[in-house]
Amino acid sequence: MLRPTHDGDRYELTSPTAMPRAAGFLWNQKMMIQATCRGYATAQFMQPEPAKYAYAPNLEAKTFMQPEQNYYAHHPGRFFYIKDEDSGELFSAPYEPVRAPVDTFTFSVGKSDIGWTVEHLGVRVELTLSLPVEDVVELWSLRVANLSGRPRRLSVYPYFPIGYMSWMNQSGEYRADLGGVVASCVTPYQKVGDYFKQKDFKDKTYFLCEEAPQAWEVRQAAFEGEGGLHRPSAIQADQLCNGDARYETPAAVVQYRLALAAGASHDYRFIFGPAFDDAEIRAVRAKYLSAAAFDAARADYAAYIAGGRGCLRIETPDPDLDNFVNHWLPRQVFYHGDVNRLSTDPQTRNYLQDNMGMSYIRPGVMRAAFLHALSQQEASGAMPDGILLAEGAELKYINQVPHTDHCVWLPVALKVYLDETGDYGILDAEVAGHEGGATLTVAQRMHRAMDWLLQARDQRGLSYIAQGDWCDPMNMVGYKGRGVSGWLTVATAYALNLWAEICEQRGDAPLLASASRYRAGAVAVNQAANEHLWDGAWYARGITDDNVKFGIGKDVEGRIWLNPQAWAILGGAADAGQRASMLEQVEQQLATPYGVAMFAPPYSAMRDDVGRVTQKHPGSAENGAVYNHAAVFYIHSLYTIGEGDRAYQLLRQMIPGPDEADYLQRGQLPVFIPNYYRGAWREYPRTAGRSSQLFNTGTVSWAYRCFIEGLCGLRGDADGLRIAPQLPKAWDAIKVTREFRGATFKLSIRRADVAGIQVWRDGERLADARVTGIVAGTVQALEVLIPR
Amino acid sequence: MLRPTHDGDRYELTSPTAMPRAAGFLWNQKMMIQATCRGYATAQFMQPEPAKYAYAPNLEAKTFMQPEQNYYAHHPGRFFYIKDEDSGELFSAPYEPVRAPVDTFTFSVGKSDIGWTVEHLGVRVELTLSLPVEDVVELWSLRVANLSGRPRRLSVYPYFPIGYMSWMNQSGEYRADLGGVVASCVTPYQKVGDYFKQKDFKDKTYFLCEEAPQAWEVRQAAFEGEGGLHRPSAIQADQLCNGDARYETPAAVVQYRLALAAGASHDYRFIFGPAFDDAEIRAVRAKYLSAAAFDAARADYAAYIAGGRGCLRIETPDPDLDNFVNHWLPRQVFYHGDVNRLSTDPQTRNYLQDNMGMSYIRPGVMRAAFLHALSQQEASGAMPDGILLAEGAELKYINQVPHTDHCVWLPVALKVYLDETGDYGILDAEVAGHEGGATLTVAQRMHRAMDWLLQARDQRGLSYIAQGDWCDPMNMVGYKGRGVSGWLTVATAYALNLWAEICEQRGDAPLLASASRYRAGAVAVNQAANEHLWDGAWYARGITDDNVKFGIGKDVEGRIWLNPQAWAILGGAADAGQRASMLEQVEQQLATPYGVAMFAPPYSAMRDDVGRVTQKHPGSAENGAVYNHAAVFYIHSLYTIGEGDRAYQLLRQMIPGPDEADYLQRGQLPVFIPNYYRGAWREYPRTAGRSSQLFNTGTVSWAYRCFIEGLCGLRGDADGLRIAPQLPKAWDAIKVTREFRGATFKLSIRRADVAGIQVWRDGERLADARVTGIVAGTVQALEVLIPR
Repeated sequence: MLRPTHDGDRYELTSPTAMPRAAGFLWNQKMMIQATCRGYATAQFMQPEPAKYAYAPNLEAKTFMQPEQNYYAHHPGRFFYIKDEDSGELFSAPYEPVRAPVDTFTFSVGKSDIGWTVEHLGVRVELTLSLPVEDVVELWSLRVANLSGRPRRLSVYPYFPIGYMSWMNQSGEYRADLGGVVASCVTPYQKVGDYFKQKDFKDKTYFLCEEAPQAWEVRQAAFEGEGGLHRPSAIQADQLCNGDARYETPAAVVQYRLALAAGASHDYRFIFGPAFDDAEIRAVRAKYLSAAAFDAARADYAAYIAGGRGCLRIETPDPDLDNFVNHWLPRQVFYHGDVNRLSTDPQTRNYLQDNMGMSYIRPGVMRAAFLHALSQQEASGAMPDGILLAEGAELKYINQVPHTDHCVWLPVALKVYLDETGDYGILDAEVAGHEGGATLTVAQRMHRAMDWLLQARDQRGLSYIAQGDWCDPMNMVGYKGRGVSGWLTVATAYALNLWAEICEQRGDAPLLASASRYRAGAVAVNQAANEHLWDGAWYARGITDDNVKFGIGKDVEGRIWLNPQAWAILGGAADAGQRASMLEQVEQQLATPYGVAMFAPPYSAMRDDVGRVTQKHPGSAENGAVYNHAAVFYIHSLYTIGEGDRAYQLLRQMIPGPDEADYLQRGQLPVFIPNYYRGAWREYPRTAGRSSQLFNTGTVSWAYRCFIEGLCGLRGDADGLRIAPQLPKAWDAIKVTREFRGATFKLSIRRADVAGIQVWRDGERLADARVTGIVAGTVQALEVLIPR
Repeated sequence: MLRPTHDGDRYELTSPTAMPRAAGFLWNQKMMIQATCRGYATAQFMQPEPAKYAYAPNLEAKTFMQPEQNYYAHHPGRFFYIKDEDSGELFSAPYEPVRAPVDTFTFSVGKSDIGWTVEHLGVRVELTLSLPVEDVVELWSLRVANLSGRPRRLSVYPYFPIGYMSWMNQSGEYRADLGGVVASCVTPYQKVGDYFKQKDFKDKTYFLCEEAPQAWEVRQAAFEGEGGLHRPSAIQADQLCNGDARYETPAAVVQYRLALAAGASHDYRFIFGPAFDDAEIRAVRAKYLSAAAFDAARADYAAYIAGGRGCLRIETPDPDLDNFVNHWLPRQVFYHGDVNRLSTDPQTRNYLQDNMGMSYIRPGVMRAAFLHALSQQEASGAMPDGILLAEGAELKYINQVPHTDHCVWLPVALKVYLDETGDYGILDAEVAGHEGGATLTVAQRMHRAMDWLLQARDQRGLSYIAQGDWCDPMNMVGYKGRGVSGWLTVATAYALNLWAEICEQRGDAPLLASASRYRAGAVAVNQAANEHLWDGAWYARGITDDNVKFGIGKDVEGRIWLNPQAWAILGGAADAGQRASMLEQVEQQLATPYGVAMFAPPYSAMRDDVGRVTQKHPGSAENGAVYNHAAVFYIHSLYTIGEGDRAYQLLRQMIPGPDEADYLQRGQLPVFIPNYYRGAWREYPRTAGRSSQLFNTGTVSWAYRCFIEGLCGLRGDADGLRIAPQLPKAWDAIKVTREFRGATFKLSIRRADVAGIQVWRDGERLADARVTGIVAGTVQALEVLIPR
């Protein structure tokens, strides 16, 4: 059965070959690890920038996280060879590097651990990886069981490749005093100033064994020998050679000789991670390397993850969906808000949206993040391209390229927070200025941001794009200073309206005056959009420096873009007729079996007035992929106009499955939403739908919002909870548990012969489809009737 | 027989496992390729910075060339699978990835081609790689011969991995119109300015077949499948699937079905390289992909390499030495001067020394390079850290770290050039100033450089080191601005004396006055050295910012350094008693079976008043390795004081072999001198002696000089050729052919009962051991008698 199964909060996959990149990920405040079903792993930790403790076999570039990670024989991973000492037969768990056709295989991804169970040669191997809450330590447990009904003599070899640590210094040896392999390196540098930055780095990688092994090998080349990783020479020999690595690529391999009676099993525990020195290694061993400590760490970590469980539980006719929404989606939202993608300089729009999602999980985190972001606002009112989170952090990669959209995300994120919490007091919170600037209230800073958006427009009233907007690689539309963004124009109207709505809600006189001004601004912006960007059936994506409109009907590639349509709905630019036209065009031109594409047709070659997006691979990343972040904006916009059925179909497409064919094509377990599925469905059907496997994406806070506020229709306002479910046509009823401002609402929602939504509590119908007077700690059961 | 054999100008190795990293390298003006005996290859080309056309499987760091290159299963290489269609048996030539135990194996490294001959399963595979002179194209010929005495049905699969080209865009497909696989990518970037730098990059990689194949595969993962590279799934199937790669790692694999009668053979030709577009691919195919074109290109390339054959041929009692000196050493010297290590910003000291070697090969190249270097002299007289060779080039890596020794290399290199050519007219050549500075003569610029060296000293008269001298990673001795270099101090005296000698030779009055001034400067510098740096038995390496002397007897690590001793001999600081003491200490403390170490004992941990060198791996690179560049300075200094026997022993150690054990330990064919052999012989004997495999090294021009001017004693002066051989004690006679200023000297040198050197020509003894009145185009036979 290649279709993965779920049981409570785990996902299980029973083939290592059907979806070879299928992976789970774990994180804590200091690290992240993504492990594939076959045993490959990618891990990083913060010191404070992302760093490795298990490296590639060659010198690897430092970069932002890449999608569609490449795996290859010597890729970092965690492997366990099992040799039958009598027959000489060999396999490896979970699957790589031997790739033996094992008898049974289960890859089991939990929310707070990842496990494998493999049976072969009459031996069962059970592996579990978990993390502690506080430290950068992988906790590995291994159970080897004899299923063969006869006594067995085995050798068990955990193999943890460490890789090419450094060109300056690397070595490794078995340390009997520490009880494992310790590899050491010096992070390379050439400039003297870097020495002081790096001298406290954790340049040691340890692999410690609870039980002392019989033998070991630390030099990767000696372990592999001429046999290759699929049949290492050192394993073909009777015993490992107890070698060391001296400026040679190190690996941690140990050998246990294990005699197992029929039906017997044996447990091992290992820890793997980086450290500064021997004392730290000793301390981490003492803290974690025992059965009791493993159990305690697992319980603590499970509690930590449970702390991000979110505010929604659903029971729908689609159990796969329920499982995803109840377990995995809030976990992914929590991850984003918890560790900000393990970056020290998250892009401002990512930072705001990732924390926006925390409004549903830990609103206090969102509040602090929002104030922190505002504290880095520039004097002009502009927001910087990235928000610095650590002392000494710098804007890197794409954050060195000027984008013009960051202010838009302030009211977007703030509105979600206010709807969820009602904490309008945040508007009066004082925020110290960046680089010695004046201390201003949140409301004052929001005014400045909105004023900045209003002025960053050309004579036509359209918003400048500079070297990019939300679409990072659209870098040449406006690099000469004249090009404008169609999306940013309608998004500016949306931002202005949102902020005006917040001001109106607060209602004091100065804010009401501001609201009126921003409402007027939004009207003007939308007028400009309709005058210059409406192309007859949809909105254009922009106008270049040289006054070439693009994303329009006469374009052969990049003809229609999703974002301008979605945000023209949100921001009010589009009237009903325009909306209907846009929805039809999106359906015709952008729909695919794997979601709605960001634009179509994909670019096949460079268009140098649009830029880098046109050079990206068709269907990958931003060039015409099903870019979920864009898709979810559109879905959200559909919910705002009551198009709940259409919205749901697209939302469901974001989650792999439930059909086997869909899983196989996407190649991903439904334990996260990836940043994209390959697009270019018409051009490259073979690869369309394939998951990027990258779980960093601004999509998830919006997707969660769509389930909460759209599908379930449970959105807060200043002093209540509105109830307006939008079930897909095929559903008659769902059950929902919604935590909101400390209270718990248990809703039974079903279709009935009603003209409008009716909400009943204890047999009494509420006056509106809205609950007020909410008291934290209470539980209310509500019956919700919706029209058929 | 694991000891490699040489036949004329080829080296042959008959095992793929004994010296797995053994490699040859080829280059032309635009590219370089290093290919190992097992089929792995590392290639780069210039556009204008070093670039790849066959990539690692993951995102690889851009860096300077690293020593001790790591190989792993998916490392780039050029492989040829052979499958028996009847038995299903499989092997790959030359060895990787199948690693079959082939019946016979020969890796044959020529000066202008690299070849392999492998026999297995009754099939002989002959492979040859050659390059053309002008273009970035690998020319591959493959002959498959049936040795089995019966008809055979084979499939032949060239497999050229292309690797992870780009995270922006990569794809590949078989192009019937071009006759091969073409992979395309976009070199990734994020800043708009980089687009304009990169838009003309050769972002396509082609693999073209002279004969159309029956089938192909372009997606690496599909080719490999679950079988692994050692037994690819696609090869286990009957026929390749004609797949393509869409944002997937591409590889070029084609399949030929080949029926061979007993004794028959079949030839194939392929070309591999980068291109900008289809038109270029078409053109390169038309130009190179035929038997006749291959033959012509090989002949042209052999002529090109022969053009760098050097000025010395020796016949000694050591045929391995003769082979190296006559064939390989001048080739390596030529490589350095020909392409400047394929860098656009060679370090100034490297650039000057690499071109210094061209004095013996193509003096005109050295002359132009010297003037080019001087044209980048700063107004202060200082030389920059690197010499820019291409428009838009920038100082990178270590060239962004300030070093203080670059001026020293000017007179050092110039003296070799003048001795070889007598071209004292160069002193009057005018050199335009850097960034609009004044035009000055070479002599004037040399004065400025020497004056800069004289002023860059502290109150004690010792030379500041800043963040490094010749020893790059000695970066913290003087970063605060006070630390001094012991080596640079005595080297300054050497530079001053050399320049003074040149001025004296020229002899006009102003130059004589300058000479006198620089001689006095040298005396003062040497006095300071003896006062502050002599440590009783050798010279200290330096004094730190905080006035800590190091490289002295009381140091436990880094106690004695080779360079201060060698250059105190060259520069005259050391008197006879000091020299004797130093030689004895070097012998006792630095000698190893693989050469003389740069210093000892190696540092085992950071010493933060010395710097990065102490963090390097003990025995690797600069931390106590047998760093050949330092060793050769010492050897040269020994020749200058008549210590020819001692010098020869060390010089011979630079060349791997001739003993089998020595080859196996070094793991390198004697086709180049590597930049280092592992040191730390006392601490880490297992790895001591291992070659870095990196052929970029300033060593070679000096080594060639030592053979020419030291061992053979054939150094020029202003108007003649001096003859002062220093044969090792064990030798009685050698024969030498020396080309000098257009004339050819055939010398027969032997020991005799003479008091001093006697030179005989046509039965007449010359007045001095010196030939004057040299006429280009003439050939002279000389008998040279030296004392027993």
